[in-house]
Amino acid sequence: MEFLSLMEIIGTVAFAVSGALVAIEKELDYYGIVFLAIITAVGGGILRDLLIDLPLPLALENPLYVLISIATAAVVILFYKKFVKYQNIILFFDAIGLAAFTAIGAEAALTHDVYMPFVVITLAVLTGTGGGILRDVFVKEIPFVFRKEVYAVACILGAAVFMGAYHLLNQGRVSMYICFGVTLAVRLIAVKMNWHLAKVKRIEGK
Amino acid sequence: MEFLSLMEIIGTVAFAVSGALVAIEKELDYYGIVFLAIITAVGGGILRDLLIDLPLPLALENPLYVLISIATAAVVILFYKKFVKYQNIILFFDAIGLAAFTAIGAEAALTHDVYMPFVVITLAVLTGTGGGILRDVFVKEIPFVFRKEVYAVACILGAAVFMGAYHLLNQGRVSMYICFGVTLAVRLIAVKMNWHLAKVKRIEGK
Amino acid sequence: MEFLSLMEIIGTVAFAVSGALVAIEKELDYYGIVFLAIITAVGGGILRDLLIDLPLPLALENPLYVLISIATAAVVILFYKKFVKYQNIILFFDAIGLAAFTAIGAEAALTHDVYMPFVVITLAVLTGTGGGILRDVFVKEIPFVFRKEVYAVACILGAAVFMGAYHLLNQGRVSMYICFGVTLAVRLIAVKMNWHLAKVKRIEGK
Repeated sequence: MEFLSLMEIIGTVAFAVSGALVAIEKELDYYGIVFLAIITAVGGGILRDLLIDLPLPLALENPLYVLISIATAAVVILFYKKFVKYQNIILFFDAIGLAAFTAIGAEAALTHDVYMPFVVITLAVLTGTGGGILRDVFVKEIPFVFRKEVYAVACILGAAVFMGAYHLLNQGRVSMYICFGVTLAVRLIAVKMNWHLAKVKRIEGK
Repeated sequence: MEFLSLMEIIGTVAFAVSGALVAIEKELDYYGIVFLAIITAVGGGILRDLLIDLPLPLALENPLYVLISIATAAVVILFYKKFVKYQNIILFFDAIGLAAFTAIGAEAALTHDVYMPFVVITLAVLTGTGGGILRDVFVKEIPFVFRKEVYAVACILGAAVFMGAYHLLNQGRVSMYICFGVTLAVRLIAVKMNWHLAKVKRIEGK
Repeated sequence: MEFLSLMEIIGTVAFAVSGALVAIEKELDYYGIVFLAIITAVGGGILRDLLIDLPLPLALENPLYVLISIATAAVVILFYKKFVKYQNIILFFDAIGLAAFTAIGAEAALTHDVYMPFVVITLAVLTGTGGGILRDVFVKEIPFVFRKEVYAVACILGAAVFMGAYHLLNQGRVSMYICFGVTLAVRLIAVKMNWHLAKVKRIEGK
């Protein structure tokens, strides 16, 4: 199996775990847990595929990732307490997923004849963060990615480096690996160093 | 008029009623009430049509169902108190809608050259439950279907039986009726017996 | 530059300002502020383009409006206090945006071979109000447009007049100006006169 396919599977599992854990925390039922696992894992890719007008989103064309998500949800349901205990490890796998999905999203743009850097970056960010946004909207939370983490920013940097590498090397595959590495590094360093994006102090009483 | 078309209209009315009632409960204005009635009734089909990449969602191609939803919203606005009183009857009609939409969603998949059981079931469930999910997201509720009812599960069973029947009989129309019957039966029995899906006990203080 | 293009830019800025201000009020970080500015400004158009099945939403095809939104968000971050002080002026520019987007949405429908009045009006309303709906969903608010303002109704009236004008004159451009004028007038008068849509008194204790 190719390295990036392996990373994508790890990422799918990590994203599905995060969806299932949030669902349990919000007291959803089994169907809600499975649904949230799936949407967190494949939601970003589905949004991307809607934007680039594919005949059928890849997540439906190839059921593998939905099946992985369902299996993951089942495992989380069975071993919920273990998962809660090892949240830090999940954060690490989540970073792998973010990096893999960003690289795949950037490459998917090229494959479908989208070359403008602006669009490639947008699609990469959407693939990486869209599933988590949908997850949070469905459980009535303001999406995590808008609040304080260096999360989408890691995707943006990764995708920008992807575009640069692709222009220099004209090699999609190598550029994906570079994108994967940069996104992963930025995200992990941000978690480790506890970096957060700034906010604007709102005026009280408004 | 064909039986399933009649069921679809009954379902549209029932879904529009549920959207309008939720809107009133959340103190939306007339526009909000009408919008929520429409989106609850046709939202699932629109999501399905986006995924299978139709040139225009059927709910826009044929305005009948939106017009029915608007008329339903008007009737709910006028006779709100009556509707609140007869919620149990609405639950019954809602089950008819769920069953009709599931059957239509499953058949729509086949019509658009989607045959993989996994995709057919997904589209059927989305057609049946998508409108209610959108309704709840717009009024800031965690979607009802994720919380405790045997609701999406009825769609999944109905759609699975549809696939089985279609493979055995190779008759879309008959398979739709069977799907309609199974979905309706499962949903009504679940309501009657007060069946709920299980949850995972969350760890407090997390 | 053409008059309507200028109005569209003013509208983009106004919508982006509203997105950025809401984001700051909800204590989102810089990325959240920029994202909300973008989605408020171009979200309605993206939803429209998904429904009419464009190969790529115009907001991605032409990055101008996203870039304007990003620049606007930066200015709001820098001069937040000024913006809070002059909310009334923003309300005025927002009305310009609503009118411009409605006219553009109606015309976009015709350009893509959609002629049914019902669909044209739907797409116009969606272009005008969709961004604000997405903004509010992302920050966990029931969309403003459903609650009490004469806002979507201004779009509906504007789009209906557009259809009438187009049938009489067969001139898309002139009809757009008329649509722009009607939508703007209705919205501004509603703000000035403090007009609100009625609600249905909900039954307590339900």
